[in-house]
Amino acid sequence: MNVLRFFISCFIFTTFVFAQQVSTPSLSTLSVENMRKIQSAALESDYALVQTRYLTNNIGPRLSGSPQYNRAAEYVAEEMRKLGLTVTMQKVKVPHWVRGIETGEIVEFSGMAPGTTQKVVLTALGGSVATPDSGLTGEVIVAENFAELERLGKQAVAGKIVLFNYKFDRELAAAGFGGDAYRQAVAYRSSGASAAARLGAVAVLVRSAGGSQNRLTHTGALRYAPDVQKIPAAAVSSEDADLISHLAGEGKVRIKLTLTPKTLPDADAYNVIADLKGSEKPEEVVIVSGHLDSWDLGTGALDDAVGVAAAMQVPYLLKKLGITPKRTIRVIAYANEENGLAGGNGYAEAEKNNIVRHFAAIESDLGASNTLGFLFSGKEQAIPLFQPISEVLSGQGAGIVRWQAGGVGADIGPLTSLGVPSFAPLFDTRTYFNYHHTTADTFDKVEPRNLAKLGSLMAVLAYGLAEMKVEIPR
Amino acid sequence: MNVLRFFISCFIFTTFVFAQQVSTPSLSTLSVENMRKIQSAALESDYALVQTRYLTNNIGPRLSGSPQYNRAAEYVAEEMRKLGLTVTMQKVKVPHWVRGIETGEIVEFSGMAPGTTQKVVLTALGGSVATPDSGLTGEVIVAENFAELERLGKQAVAGKIVLFNYKFDRELAAAGFGGDAYRQAVAYRSSGASAAARLGAVAVLVRSAGGSQNRLTHTGALRYAPDVQKIPAAAVSSEDADLISHLAGEGKVRIKLTLTPKTLPDADAYNVIADLKGSEKPEEVVIVSGHLDSWDLGTGALDDAVGVAAAMQVPYLLKKLGITPKRTIRVIAYANEENGLAGGNGYAEAEKNNIVRHFAAIESDLGASNTLGFLFSGKEQAIPLFQPISEVLSGQGAGIVRWQAGGVGADIGPLTSLGVPSFAPLFDTRTYFNYHHTTADTFDKVEPRNLAKLGSLMAVLAYGLAEMKVEIPR
Repeated sequence: MNVLRFFISCFIFTTFVFAQQVSTPSLSTLSVENMRKIQSAALESDYALVQTRYLTNNIGPRLSGSPQYNRAAEYVAEEMRKLGLTVTMQKVKVPHWVRGIETGEIVEFSGMAPGTTQKVVLTALGGSVATPDSGLTGEVIVAENFAELERLGKQAVAGKIVLFNYKFDRELAAAGFGGDAYRQAVAYRSSGASAAARLGAVAVLVRSAGGSQNRLTHTGALRYAPDVQKIPAAAVSSEDADLISHLAGEGKVRIKLTLTPKTLPDADAYNVIADLKGSEKPEEVVIVSGHLDSWDLGTGALDDAVGVAAAMQVPYLLKKLGITPKRTIRVIAYANEENGLAGGNGYAEAEKNNIVRHFAAIESDLGASNTLGFLFSGKEQAIPLFQPISEVLSGQGAGIVRWQAGGVGADIGPLTSLGVPSFAPLFDTRTYFNYHHTTADTFDKVEPRNLAKLGSLMAVLAYGLAEMKVEIPR
Repeated sequence: MNVLRFFISCFIFTTFVFAQQVSTPSLSTLSVENMRKIQSAALESDYALVQTRYLTNNIGPRLSGSPQYNRAAEYVAEEMRKLGLTVTMQKVKVPHWVRGIETGEIVEFSGMAPGTTQKVVLTALGGSVATPDSGLTGEVIVAENFAELERLGKQAVAGKIVLFNYKFDRELAAAGFGGDAYRQAVAYRSSGASAAARLGAVAVLVRSAGGSQNRLTHTGALRYAPDVQKIPAAAVSSEDADLISHLAGEGKVRIKLTLTPKTLPDADAYNVIADLKGSEKPEEVVIVSGHLDSWDLGTGALDDAVGVAAAMQVPYLLKKLGITPKRTIRVIAYANEENGLAGGNGYAEAEKNNIVRHFAAIESDLGASNTLGFLFSGKEQAIPLFQPISEVLSGQGAGIVRWQAGGVGADIGPLTSLGVPSFAPLFDTRTYFNYHHTTADTFDKVEPRNLAKLGSLMAVLAYGLAEMKVEIPR
């Protein structure tokens, strides 16, 4: 996920514990029985694992605009048709940014053996403009954060390559606040280029926004401010940020940076929309979703093949068990979450006159660590209605219901803004940001048991919502 | 370290526990008091840390034959001269292998989107011959181990690229048997190329011999059998080995491999030998050593700047405390441990007529994790003599003395074979092989407290041996 959009205005207010039964159960005894059946089947199913493996190992990275993205969209559509669902391919225009050569070397530093340089492990940030093909060489100036950059001022920064050395807080992540640690660090990836360019910098390096200590780089979208010169931008590994910072403390450090990404004309991509028709209120939909696009360094297993696969598993399980929900369950594999949100925005725009028919929306986009419950964004007084669902989920250790302001997922964010009650799995985030947006986001990082639990949570929650006897207050 | 040579014939026989005092202490009360002073000073010193940082951050990777290696040798010599030691630069001829381009991509596989490939993260093994500059494309055949390769036979293997997918045993490493896990896996790195070539393979890929799950590759020397065609050889990350293996189970997999390393004529390098003259028996020497060369992907912090730095710290501490040992303490920074052992062999060859003057040799070459005690290779009946030393070391949690057959270090191995009592720190090996020989072997991996403990162990042991009142039986 591009967690920035998700977390930027988002504060966790409360953990809601159901101390006692509410007076009027929102779900029938039969619905609850079915939820338990779905849960048992989900915990034993490897459908989501098989789909994740295909999307990652056989198709690979799926950056918007790439042939892999469109192949993946076709694949998901085929799989949903196989289950008998009605599939719509919703066209959206997406950015088409292509990574090129990316190399860095320190060409001047204290202690340098004659005739040598030191390599810098780096990767272009998504959307970055290129350096000249022959590279760009400049002196480095290091700022720990935005405030320090401002203190340095134009005179010190102009003509330099700025390194933002803001350190991802591993302790915060280890304590379970991975999202918060990420939100703090990712501001430099997102806005560092323009902040540096405003003071005349010629390029920007950003310490990778993640917890890895394995010389990995963390790509992700940057945002150029419209009124500032666009300068080349790359993420460096934490080790290289430490190295450059140390050497810059001892004397002049000059770096040669070569980045040759290209921004091509916007491309056609598709949201895959697959409906399992409801038996009683087919015109009302409960969305289960993830995003099908990924960054290009790894194969986007945790971000977010698992989310799409867990969503795909919902109709699979219902079909297998012969259970038809009252409302329509709509699987959506969104295009272009990572670098544009064209998928989420496009869907919401197309459905804006039909928004009251959207009973609820669920999105999974924080990997496949252990699930602890679910997040809800909507009217807080609705929470008691979800008690029968969370009671079932507590049987798999996922009984927490947590209300969250500002939305719970990037793609469904536009729907949340339009009043659609929104849900997402609540994950253990302690390790997610070690792999997120790096080359190491690959299939082996998916722990099958945790993915099965995620699949169960998505299915129980989706079915439960599709069966609810009352409306969720908006 | 190139642990292969170290572990190949090596079995740990016993952990020796001192149940009671021996009758004649091998060290005087004054010597023991001095050991405790040295220990206190070492645990508070950052000398080794500062040296490690300079060798890794300011000089960088130090592969034999590189300008960085020779710069590092000069640097160590200068630092030792600063302490007033007598320095000898012992010239040795070393291999001069230079890494080139290294790329891999899967160009045919099941599920492939038209017009795409999948990248393979790989690195040339040290000493590998090159592919053509334009690359080499071939079908992959996967073998889990040597036995499976043999079963496949010439007919299946000829003309193919062999992937050895032998999995480093992470559980074994996590249980404290990191060296054993490594020894099992590294056989494929070392001998895989010739085993495959013997059956007609055109190139070999070897799953990285290490515990990392971060798409890192593990380089290291290979050995071509003299009677077999030399074929290009690369290590792939565990993730890519899994990927290729999975895809090969579904259909034909073809890989394009480009490796352009060069083997240049042997180069001049230097063992740095620095003597702190003994007060009573200056002609007898106790060696404290590590190897100064490193692989070229990372900066060789754990392998083995820390070993050299901890050895350098021994005379530093003695000078600082004004303590002069009875025997000469000789610091050696060996050239070319990683890909040739020219340093260790050259030293032993030069000293072969003087071997009886070598009272003992210590080498540290397994990183800087927590030290638990020391290893000893020599006559087992000597062990009680070390009791006063291990008693002091037990004060820092490093009281184990473990006898080990077959030597305890690669560079001092030739001395061990000539009868010199040999010693090495006993490390916690649980994490070492996550970084060893990878691009992530950088300064930040050095935990200052553990390095201080290593420095203390090296100094206490070296001084204790230099003070011993009796000979160690040979």
